[in-house]
Amino acid sequence: MEWLNTPAQAPNAAMSAAARTRQAQLTKPVGALGDLEAVAIRLAGLQGREQPAVDKVQISVFAADHGVAEEGVSAFPQAVTAQMVHNFLNGGAAISVLARALGATLEIVDVGVKTPITHPKLISQRVGDGTANSALGAAMTRPQLSLALQAGADAAERAHTANAALFIGGEMGIANTTAATAIYCALLDVAILEATGPGTGLDRDGMVHKVNVIRRILNQHRSHFDDPLEVLRRVGGFEIAALTGAYIRAAQLGLPVLVDGFISTAAALIAIHVQAAVADWLFLSHTSAEPGHFFAIAELKQRPLLDLNLRLGEGSGAAIAVPLLRLACTLHNQMATFAEAAIAGKL
Amino acid sequence: MEWLNTPAQAPNAAMSAAARTRQAQLTKPVGALGDLEAVAIRLAGLQGREQPAVDKVQISVFAADHGVAEEGVSAFPQAVTAQMVHNFLNGGAAISVLARALGATLEIVDVGVKTPITHPKLISQRVGDGTANSALGAAMTRPQLSLALQAGADAAERAHTANAALFIGGEMGIANTTAATAIYCALLDVAILEATGPGTGLDRDGMVHKVNVIRRILNQHRSHFDDPLEVLRRVGGFEIAALTGAYIRAAQLGLPVLVDGFISTAAALIAIHVQAAVADWLFLSHTSAEPGHFFAIAELKQRPLLDLNLRLGEGSGAAIAVPLLRLACTLHNQMATFAEAAIAGKL
Repeated sequence: MEWLNTPAQAPNAAMSAAARTRQAQLTKPVGALGDLEAVAIRLAGLQGREQPAVDKVQISVFAADHGVAEEGVSAFPQAVTAQMVHNFLNGGAAISVLARALGATLEIVDVGVKTPITHPKLISQRVGDGTANSALGAAMTRPQLSLALQAGADAAERAHTANAALFIGGEMGIANTTAATAIYCALLDVAILEATGPGTGLDRDGMVHKVNVIRRILNQHRSHFDDPLEVLRRVGGFEIAALTGAYIRAAQLGLPVLVDGFISTAAALIAIHVQAAVADWLFLSHTSAEPGHFFAIAELKQRPLLDLNLRLGEGSGAAIAVPLLRLACTLHNQMATFAEAAIAGKL
Repeated sequence: MEWLNTPAQAPNAAMSAAARTRQAQLTKPVGALGDLEAVAIRLAGLQGREQPAVDKVQISVFAADHGVAEEGVSAFPQAVTAQMVHNFLNGGAAISVLARALGATLEIVDVGVKTPITHPKLISQRVGDGTANSALGAAMTRPQLSLALQAGADAAERAHTANAALFIGGEMGIANTTAATAIYCALLDVAILEATGPGTGLDRDGMVHKVNVIRRILNQHRSHFDDPLEVLRRVGGFEIAALTGAYIRAAQLGLPVLVDGFISTAAALIAIHVQAAVADWLFLSHTSAEPGHFFAIAELKQRPLLDLNLRLGEGSGAAIAVPLLRLACTLHNQMATFAEAAIAGKL
C-alpha cells in the first residue's frame, strides 16, 4: 500500500490567480456569482488552465456487503445490495438516470457483494463475499484492505486515462451508514448519538439499536483510532475502502473529485487523514440529510454546493451537483469583460 | 388593472397525489431524494400530469431605471442599466450565457431605461424614461403602473403561447435593491437595518447612506402600506411591476414560475399580497446573499433550492437552478419502481 504515500499533485496557483483576475473583469459586481466564482477559480487551479471545463465525467459506483448487517442495523434486507447492482446495470436506479441525463460515463464495480453477480457490464473486482462483522472483529484482513483500495485506484486510473475532467465515486452496501458512522466517530471524536442517523429509514427503536451496535463496534476497535487505515480496515467496508483509494489516486493523478454524501465523505475523511493534501482535489457536493455529515463537513472546511435533504448515496448527490460545476465554468469562460462590453465600473 | 383579480389556476391535486404515489414506488428509500421529490410532486400538480417535465424555459429580463438613483444609493452609475441591456442582447451577460447553456429562450424587455435603446432583438415596451425619485414622491403614475404590470403579463402570455414549461423573470435597474428593500419594509414590517444590504457592492458609508434614503422613502409613503399596488407604484420600479404582472398572469395561465433573488422576490411579495393563490405557482430558486431576502423567504413559506451566495439578479439565480428542476423530473419519470426492478422493500 506504499502507493498511498505518493504525494497528491499541487494545484496550479498561477492558473487560479489568473482565473481570479478574470472573474474580477467579468460584467457583474465582484463576487455576485458567489460560490460559483470560487468553484471556477478552484477548478482553474486543479485543471491547470485559466478557463476550466467539466465536459467528461466518470461515475464509478462500488458495491459491497457488510457483515455488520447481521446485527439488524438497516431498514432494508441485505439482498438489496445485489438487487440494486442489477438496477444500476439495467438503468433504473437514480444514479443510472442521472448519468444518462448528464452524459456521464457510469461504471459499476463489485468489490464484494455477498453473492457474486454475473453481468456483461459489471466490473468484478471482488475482495470477498462481504466484510466480516465489525461488531465481532475486524471487518477485513490486511490483504482485503489493500485490494479494495486498489480497486478504487484502478477506477481513478481509468477516469484519468479516459480524460475525464471530474471523478465521482458512488457506493451501495446495505448497512454502510453503520460503517461510515463508526469511521466518523473514530476519526472525529464526535458522540455516537450525534453522528448516528436513520440511514435508509430506521424508526426510533431501530435507531436506538443501531447506536448500541456502533458503540460495540467502537469499543471493540478503540485502541486503533490513531491509524486511519486501521480504522478503515476494522470498521469500514470494501466500497468505502475503494472510494478512499479512488480519492487518493485521483489527487495523485491531478483529477478533481466531486464527493457524494455521508458514506463517501467517510472515505474522504480517511483519505485526508492518510494524506492531508488530497483535500485540495475534493469538492463537497451536498450536505446530507444524515445528521452526522455536518461533522465531516466541518473537518473538510468546505461549504457543500447543495443542501437538498438528499440521503440516497450511489453518487447521486454528486451527480445532481454536476450542472453547477458546469455552469460555473461556462459563466467563467463565456461572460464578457467590462472592457469587451464597454460597461462602466464602480463609482 | 381588473385582470389582476382573475383567479390563479388551481393546481391539480389528483396529479400531485399520483406523483406522490409514484415517488413511493421508485427504487430508493422514501424521501431519499429530499427536496427534489417535492419539486417533482409540485410540478406534477402544476402541469397536470403525473410525469412533469421542464423542457422549454422562457427567461424574460425587464430593464428600467430608477429616479432614486440620483440619491447615490448604488455602487454603479445609472448608465450601467443601458450598458447591461446591450450586454444582454450581445450575449455577454451572465443571463445570456446561462440561457444559451440551458437552451432557454431569452427575451429582453425595455420597460423604461432612462435613454431609449434601439436594437433589433429588444422588446420595447417603455413606460417612461425611468421612474421618478421615490424619496421625493411616487415612483410612478397610475397609468405607468398599469402599463408596467401589463408588460409583464404580456411576457407571461408569450411564454404560455410558446408552450414554455417554466417562466423565469429577470431584472436590471441600477438602484433597484433600494426599491426592493422599501417594498420588503412596507409589506413585511421588517426593520430597515435588517433588510438593507450592499446591493452591487456599497461600502459601509454607502450602506449608511442607503439606509437613510430608504428611511426617507418609507416616511414619505407610510400611509399607503396597506395597499400592495400602491406600495409598488410609490416605492417600486417599472421592472419590479413587470415582474409582478408576469407572476400573476403566469399563475392565471397555469404556468409555473421560478423566482430569482432579492428583487424578483419583492415582486413575488406584491403578487401574493394582491392574490395569495399566486404563491402556488412560484418556486424559489435560491437564497440571495442580500440579507433582507430571508424575510421574504419566510413570508413565502418555501425553502429555496440553492444557497450559493448569489447576488447578481438578471434572473441568473433562477437559471442556475433550472437543472435541478429538470433532474428532479427526469429522476421521477425514469427511475424504475421496486416492482419493475424486483427489489425487496423495507423490513
